[in-house]
Amino acid sequence: MSGELIRLGLAGLGTVGTGLAKILASNADWIQRRLGRQVVIKSALVRDPTKVRDLPSRMNIALATSMDDLLQDPELDIIVELMGGLDAPYRLISAALARGKAVVTANKALLAERGNELFSLAAKHGAALYYEASVAGGIPIVQVLKESLAGNRIKALTGILNGTANYILTEMTDRGLDFQTALGQAQAKGYAEADPTLDIQGMDAAHKLVLLIRLAYGEDYPLSELPVQGISHVDPQDIIFADQFGFRVKLIAQVRHSQGGLDAGVFTALVRQEHILGKVDGPFNAVLVEGDAVGPLMLYGQGAGDLPTGSAVLADIMALARAGCSPNNTGFPEIVLPPAAILSPDHVRSRHYFRFTVLDRPGVLAVIAGVFGQRNISIAQMVQKGSSSGRNVPVVFITHSAQARDVTAAVREIDTQSFITAPSVHYRIL
Amino acid sequence: MSGELIRLGLAGLGTVGTGLAKILASNADWIQRRLGRQVVIKSALVRDPTKVRDLPSRMNIALATSMDDLLQDPELDIIVELMGGLDAPYRLISAALARGKAVVTANKALLAERGNELFSLAAKHGAALYYEASVAGGIPIVQVLKESLAGNRIKALTGILNGTANYILTEMTDRGLDFQTALGQAQAKGYAEADPTLDIQGMDAAHKLVLLIRLAYGEDYPLSELPVQGISHVDPQDIIFADQFGFRVKLIAQVRHSQGGLDAGVFTALVRQEHILGKVDGPFNAVLVEGDAVGPLMLYGQGAGDLPTGSAVLADIMALARAGCSPNNTGFPEIVLPPAAILSPDHVRSRHYFRFTVLDRPGVLAVIAGVFGQRNISIAQMVQKGSSSGRNVPVVFITHSAQARDVTAAVREIDTQSFITAPSVHYRIL
Repeated sequence: MSGELIRLGLAGLGTVGTGLAKILASNADWIQRRLGRQVVIKSALVRDPTKVRDLPSRMNIALATSMDDLLQDPELDIIVELMGGLDAPYRLISAALARGKAVVTANKALLAERGNELFSLAAKHGAALYYEASVAGGIPIVQVLKESLAGNRIKALTGILNGTANYILTEMTDRGLDFQTALGQAQAKGYAEADPTLDIQGMDAAHKLVLLIRLAYGEDYPLSELPVQGISHVDPQDIIFADQFGFRVKLIAQVRHSQGGLDAGVFTALVRQEHILGKVDGPFNAVLVEGDAVGPLMLYGQGAGDLPTGSAVLADIMALARAGCSPNNTGFPEIVLPPAAILSPDHVRSRHYFRFTVLDRPGVLAVIAGVFGQRNISIAQMVQKGSSSGRNVPVVFITHSAQARDVTAAVREIDTQSFITAPSVHYRIL
Repeated sequence: MSGELIRLGLAGLGTVGTGLAKILASNADWIQRRLGRQVVIKSALVRDPTKVRDLPSRMNIALATSMDDLLQDPELDIIVELMGGLDAPYRLISAALARGKAVVTANKALLAERGNELFSLAAKHGAALYYEASVAGGIPIVQVLKESLAGNRIKALTGILNGTANYILTEMTDRGLDFQTALGQAQAKGYAEADPTLDIQGMDAAHKLVLLIRLAYGEDYPLSELPVQGISHVDPQDIIFADQFGFRVKLIAQVRHSQGGLDAGVFTALVRQEHILGKVDGPFNAVLVEGDAVGPLMLYGQGAGDLPTGSAVLADIMALARAGCSPNNTGFPEIVLPPAAILSPDHVRSRHYFRFTVLDRPGVLAVIAGVFGQRNISIAQMVQKGSSSGRNVPVVFITHSAQARDVTAAVREIDTQSFITAPSVHYRIL
């Protein structure tokens, strides 16, 4: 990358690829001033070269339909992978790295599934593999963990990492919508894809969390071992009860460090309304990092979209264009990160919210309280609503900190009782 | 910096210097893992070597009393300047840079006053001058503006950059204290220094804003031309009125970009309670950046203190220790940044809050409204409190956007009226 131009080979001209092209066109002078050099997209790999695209008019991008067109062009300084999917991006990125070519990607799924392989390949060939855009869109959390907080031991990292899920939960909370209606609205507004599975089942947040764990702890946490819960089961009545206790329901991605190892997962949780994460609404994302030196540090911004994500891709491109920066792919000098020490999910401690649907008859509370007591679950608050039907009423408990295995066992035992008339619900409290 | 050890020459063992030493001691293994190398303080320049210090027990730091001891030690890899003040740090930093030695500093006052000189010297000698800790303590805003948002044109940057002032205003708001009582409490808690002038008069925030303007716009904004207002004049009754209209009173440092140039300043302002900056309370800092691509991005954290600021100093040290990173001191390749194009303060537009103290007699409102009308100031809301004394009553206005010169002229004209019985108050609304 020693010439006057930085030439990009761009794979994928979808939302983010088009966003990047727009920023490169509108801010060309500014980027030139920042770098002393121009950044141009020389060629773009697309599935259908005849498709009409909303690209900046001044751009002269050669459309390619084969990976080899990018891989075999010696003029390209950086391969930018914005295709999505797993297999094709894997082939492109690994081939580029093997040639010592710098790669920028936004592909969280691929890095979460096969990061160790790709980072090893990058280190082996002294090639840069940058991925700021893969987590939380425009929020520079990758850079901040890799560089700015490098001297901190991270006690906990808690994120609202999926804007689609957060938008849906916000609409359910603020407007009393049910899940399906809120999802439909998110799709109409372009916040949710036609197939929203990855977003609403928590897998998208899980991919991002695995990347953040690598950056924060230098450990490889297998995606397959991460407990992941989505939001499609969230019932509006739990949002209302949570509100009465002063909480908002959020999809949380969290890792906490303890003596026994990392306690990580994606789960629906109750967050105090006054908590700084309780105020992150709509399609926004946020990451709260608690370092042993820096204390609490929160980054808040747009976690998706053409321009915010394009901004993050461009940050990587410009970092690579600055002379002499080392690859530093994982933030650690090791070629292969060691496997994470994982705290058994049974031992995870947390406050909990429970809702039981019970027959409205005497003695029910005594049975539930008895089971809780046997399992070392201490009750902090309780609400029992008067019955409208005269039969089935919700009983809600907020507990002090309890172990996950005790919570599971208690719910299993209570659910066998004859007075239980619907599946019980329980959420962690942040 | 090619050996196994990174050897620091530390100037100043005050709050931040001691914080850095503590982090280096407690996280030594972690830092070694991150870098593959150890970071040690080889020698420290102090005023009084006989003073008893609270340093980690394992550290073997040679105490020096002359700058030359640091400057002439060829073993030192980085000079870390944490002395405070202007003249002595200037001499140390310029001498180190002239020798091509890398420098890390937290000295916002020095960089705001003489940044152009020092950055030029750094560029001329190919030496790194890093300064993450100089703005907003542990919040990595320098890195984020220099790297992560490099491809964005910054439309506006708005910060709560002084934790002392923010703590005082928060206590005045939440507990109804007056300024002097809140200041005394801040001093008792260690949030304000014995001489709090720089903090409460806005100069500390002004120093930081000048540095952020350089990073965001690549322009040199002379500190002497920045409009700066403090908080010592803030009257509890304006906090109460602001609250009634749904606002909180904050000390804001802001720069906005417009066709006519940069509109920058430090001023007391009303911020909507629901605005993300309205929720930044106590000693915390926050910076909200609005980029043309990334959209709104906020960073929130501890803006002062031994460990948070030490964390930022350590981030710079570790960035320098990574092999092969270029100096990149200002985030722009130019040796000298051009002077900022400054929008005339007269032309700055903003919504405003006004409080007039008037004799409670008919016709007063008509006169004020008439002056506003002549000056193109459009009233959005008005409150007149019933008089308790029967004579002097406050009248409060919230206006739509108006030009600063019209606001000044209107207040000057209204203050000449015979019904005005106390100085009038006006604040910008964010």
